[in-house]
Amino acid sequence: MRAAVMRNKKLVVADIPAPEPGPGEVIVKTLACGICGSDLHALKHAEQLVESSKRAGAAFVMDLKRDVVMGHEFCAEVAEFGSGTQRRLKPGTRVCSFPVLIRPNGIQAVGYSNDNPGGYAEYMRLTEALLLEVPNGLSTERAALTEPMAVGYHAVQKARLTPDDAPLVIGCGPVGLAVIAALKLKGQHPIVAADFSPRRRELALKMGADIVVDPKEKSAFETWKEAAVYADASKAPPVQPWTRGPALRPSVIFECVGVPGVIESIMTGSQSGARIVVVGVCMERDSFEPMLGISKELNVQFVLGYTPEEFAETLFNLAQGNINGDPLITGKVGVEGVAQAFEDLSSPERHAKILVEPWRS
Amino acid sequence: MRAAVMRNKKLVVADIPAPEPGPGEVIVKTLACGICGSDLHALKHAEQLVESSKRAGAAFVMDLKRDVVMGHEFCAEVAEFGSGTQRRLKPGTRVCSFPVLIRPNGIQAVGYSNDNPGGYAEYMRLTEALLLEVPNGLSTERAALTEPMAVGYHAVQKARLTPDDAPLVIGCGPVGLAVIAALKLKGQHPIVAADFSPRRRELALKMGADIVVDPKEKSAFETWKEAAVYADASKAPPVQPWTRGPALRPSVIFECVGVPGVIESIMTGSQSGARIVVVGVCMERDSFEPMLGISKELNVQFVLGYTPEEFAETLFNLAQGNINGDPLITGKVGVEGVAQAFEDLSSPERHAKILVEPWRS
Repeated sequence: MRAAVMRNKKLVVADIPAPEPGPGEVIVKTLACGICGSDLHALKHAEQLVESSKRAGAAFVMDLKRDVVMGHEFCAEVAEFGSGTQRRLKPGTRVCSFPVLIRPNGIQAVGYSNDNPGGYAEYMRLTEALLLEVPNGLSTERAALTEPMAVGYHAVQKARLTPDDAPLVIGCGPVGLAVIAALKLKGQHPIVAADFSPRRRELALKMGADIVVDPKEKSAFETWKEAAVYADASKAPPVQPWTRGPALRPSVIFECVGVPGVIESIMTGSQSGARIVVVGVCMERDSFEPMLGISKELNVQFVLGYTPEEFAETLFNLAQGNINGDPLITGKVGVEGVAQAFEDLSSPERHAKILVEPWRS
Repeated sequence: MRAAVMRNKKLVVADIPAPEPGPGEVIVKTLACGICGSDLHALKHAEQLVESSKRAGAAFVMDLKRDVVMGHEFCAEVAEFGSGTQRRLKPGTRVCSFPVLIRPNGIQAVGYSNDNPGGYAEYMRLTEALLLEVPNGLSTERAALTEPMAVGYHAVQKARLTPDDAPLVIGCGPVGLAVIAALKLKGQHPIVAADFSPRRRELALKMGADIVVDPKEKSAFETWKEAAVYADASKAPPVQPWTRGPALRPSVIFECVGVPGVIESIMTGSQSGARIVVVGVCMERDSFEPMLGISKELNVQFVLGYTPEEFAETLFNLAQGNINGDPLITGKVGVEGVAQAFEDLSSPERHAKILVEPWRS
């Protein structure tokens, strides 16, 4: 089968053996698969990813000397059944899946794996028990957004927001945009979002941000402060007489950038008592001043992925129109276009999410 | 009055003007004042403390060119009243106080201040409204432990423990010992505590630790794992079949060391989903790998100090015998002995808490 393969730290188009289904597994034909920022990171920082996965005891450990077919944001079509399958869904049924295989000896990644090709290939092997049928009427493109949207949904769940909390989203790439969509779904307004790119600020507004700010023009934290004043002053908690300015709602800041220095800049700019949710995936070392966190009694919640339940809820929310991910999709390519798409995605002005359609010739 | 003064980054004994009470303020005679690890830090890293306090917008900004009398863990005796005071407590009454002054333009530190001498001097100025009478029967030495014990009490409150949570205390200096006392008060067993020093492990046991470990001999995290198995397996949550070992209780780790690298070593050693409570005060820069936190979805809660309510509750708990801080007190000195006491406290084998009694000649 044709695939965009990570080989010697480069993306090449190659013909590779199609996967065979194990017991309880299904072969699916990839219909569409989004290119994730983590894939860009993985290509650029492959060694770090493997190293820190090993240290964290994670299952996603690849041998970089062997081929890897990435792609974990997919919508696919049931094609062939392995032994011991229930065959509840007919061939041709469109499905999404939590991108792992459940095997007797543990879970295995689909995409970040030498053995289980991801959605940048024509076919994948999936665990039948994880397949979710795409509801009628939900387009394949939208269904392929389930995975990235679930990341934002999970981050907002982990933030344990109370109605008073006022959110600030730092970074409006696909992760930040997914967080904005999840905040909108939760009715957590006003949503303040910051990004240096005009295009991404525009996308942030389309996804549900109420206020966007260019940090070059004005501090994201000052903008948040103005927005976080209680609309109804009678509902604000009492402030000490020497506090400057009005009472502000509690601060929850979503770090959706994932490069060194961002966490510390948020610790510096944030209010006392702020909660920082780290959604951006930084694969390099980073530094900070513990005293900053201590003086303000900050809370830092690192998050990753989503639960199977959150994944299913996100597919449901896309089907119901509760989450609209359409503004994210800015391009489509075949496997030949993947390497160039990776290049293109490095500019925030051009693209947000590019879908790979491996069936395209 | 006589005082141990921080002058040009050294501790010297000097005669300085006694403080005058402002409106609503009281002059107290210092009876006993503990030497805090933060004071040791402040002497060694004075510039960093001032710099990071400024960046954090904290009130505790000192001019290091001027004298500072430290000491914020005190028990004192009411001596003289300023204007506009209520005079509810008679002269001679023993009191503790949250170590700040409440003034019309804001709060001011007592101790980390050029203007408000702390307990390493014969007299202090305090805000009358913050004075708590020491209950009859509670010794002055024990009452002086209110402040350091409140730090542990606050850290445990901020940890929002559920009955299932299994605690691990990293570092058994006075902060770690106060955390252990607060965990014991809460009934949060088993309490696992780690320290390289035999003396401090012995103190940890006296304060309420159930299991102590020398990290040179065995990993603190492995020790915790053995202790965190559900005693009643029927109450353990289900584990996936491929998980090695039994279900473990949720992990809450108290960082009570405060030197660079400790937070990262905890991130490396901890379980997935662990909560890390940073109580140790690290005044230097530190580094970490965000990917470690992300892979395990760790939560890091930085904490500082205590609320006025927690301070009062701690005094009450000491008076009731719910918290026994006696093992902590390992020495007493007059103002002449403060500089040497700072030296002595750098060895964990010799001392835990030294009380300064400025009235001693």
